[in-house]
Amino acid sequence: MKRRVLVTGASGFIGTPLVEVLVDQGWAVVTASRTRPDRDPGVADWIQTDLLTDDPRPLTAAARAEVLVHLAWIATPGLYGHSLENLDWLRTSAALSAAFLAGGGRRLVGAGTCLEYDCDGGADSTGPRTLYAAAKHACRLVFERQIAAVEGASLAWPRIFYLIGPGDHPDRFAPALARRLVAGETAEISQGLVERDFIDVRDCARAMAALAGAEASGTFDLASGRGWRLRDLAEAIAAQAGRPDLLRINPNLDRPGEPPRLVGDPEPLRRAAGVAPIYSIDRSIADLLRHWQDRAANVSGGR
Amino acid sequence: MKRRVLVTGASGFIGTPLVEVLVDQGWAVVTASRTRPDRDPGVADWIQTDLLTDDPRPLTAAARAEVLVHLAWIATPGLYGHSLENLDWLRTSAALSAAFLAGGGRRLVGAGTCLEYDCDGGADSTGPRTLYAAAKHACRLVFERQIAAVEGASLAWPRIFYLIGPGDHPDRFAPALARRLVAGETAEISQGLVERDFIDVRDCARAMAALAGAEASGTFDLASGRGWRLRDLAEAIAAQAGRPDLLRINPNLDRPGEPPRLVGDPEPLRRAAGVAPIYSIDRSIADLLRHWQDRAANVSGGR
Repeated sequence: MKRRVLVTGASGFIGTPLVEVLVDQGWAVVTASRTRPDRDPGVADWIQTDLLTDDPRPLTAAARAEVLVHLAWIATPGLYGHSLENLDWLRTSAALSAAFLAGGGRRLVGAGTCLEYDCDGGADSTGPRTLYAAAKHACRLVFERQIAAVEGASLAWPRIFYLIGPGDHPDRFAPALARRLVAGETAEISQGLVERDFIDVRDCARAMAALAGAEASGTFDLASGRGWRLRDLAEAIAAQAGRPDLLRINPNLDRPGEPPRLVGDPEPLRRAAGVAPIYSIDRSIADLLRHWQDRAANVSGGR
Repeated sequence: MKRRVLVTGASGFIGTPLVEVLVDQGWAVVTASRTRPDRDPGVADWIQTDLLTDDPRPLTAAARAEVLVHLAWIATPGLYGHSLENLDWLRTSAALSAAFLAGGGRRLVGAGTCLEYDCDGGADSTGPRTLYAAAKHACRLVFERQIAAVEGASLAWPRIFYLIGPGDHPDRFAPALARRLVAGETAEISQGLVERDFIDVRDCARAMAALAGAEASGTFDLASGRGWRLRDLAEAIAAQAGRPDLLRINPNLDRPGEPPRLVGDPEPLRRAAGVAPIYSIDRSIADLLRHWQDRAANVSGGR
């Protein structure tokens, strides 16, 4: 019999490739969302629910899943950092995991963030700077406590670093840049001196699937282990697009107070789940550019 | 005309002496709670509301307060550290402060905790260890964001250290000890090697009142600045009670993983609000013991 996994946020940036990997690996995948997904990637069941307002118990009872991969959360660029909706997702997550464990679920895979590491310095260093990361941190504490109370239950809390690849929200750094370059428009960026760890979203999906099937408890960086200055990444994207001439550096776009370096360590996750990134940054950039080239071509063709 | 201040949690351990100080200082104090308080300390208005379930807008509209001192939160010993009710109080606090500011309120005094400083060490150091402190940390982020969006609004976030004095929950360290010693019962304590900063609850009330009337924004330790090993405090209580013979050290009661030292710095709060502690620890202990002696006498008298 196939192992059953319930995935929330299954139609999102990570969820879309994750469901593909899980189905490929032979899982019976159950997804849950307000509206029926546009396409059927071969899931065993789809359950209609509004995670933010509905009682989660009918959902977990219907899903009968051994593993829960909980991705659903607010992620809108420009809003998610400080939206009060983070508090709703925190409450929802606590209730969902409680229902899942009460219903016999035994493995929980959360979705932490590298921003959990982005804490204030000095005497005021008491936690993450953004409400998003503070709520994620609190979510981990809740999950850990719930898991500790259930015999044989385990929790993996991957801290997901910066994702790159096709399917991201068009307003994020790399896709916004790719979109403009593909359209032949100039693209302004900050000086981009801060260093970030980018990992392909499909590597992220492979890692999440591996964590679903593993047994290790703990927090794990979900990261490439390699830091890119944003400027270097922008130049690599512009070079591959053949339009380095369109890139403009505007120091006024620098955001003071941003952490200078957020780079993870992929080793603990590799040890725990036997998985490591395989996509090169060049491949991620190529696929990102192709994604926007295809969309531009479709728009042109549709005219 | 008197300045109006809305106090939540007004019948609690801090709220009770705080309301007395505010009334003494000439504030028009408005309190809000589910049930009518047992005694009237001279408040201008009492508004019936369930903060956890009711829309806060009618409350803040009726209160017409310039200042909000928000103390209400879960505080039950043994439960508050990891109760999911912390998430309800977080959501409630965000909605209350939003309503307060939308209704014209301009000064917000929160109730942070020294446990915000109690973070994990090492690479996993991403925030407070307890859900209580994580939720308080998140609450500060919410308040700061809300305040920043309102012209002329300010936020004081005192981080309250360990309180001592009459009126505390009987299950906390010092009152539990005082109670047993007064009753002539042996009192077991851990080795008590960790160091904590104790401040009299009436000094805390004076500091909160001063912050209500001040204008400074920021986070401030609300602390004595002096560290007491729990064992030394226990011995001081037993000595004053005249029953050092009743104290028993039991190393099995040690809680591993507790932070070895939590001691605050009262200086920033003194500069911001012109207030510093005046109660000595001996006075706090004397009043704590008298409180339990009086109760013991009343119980005996009632027999």
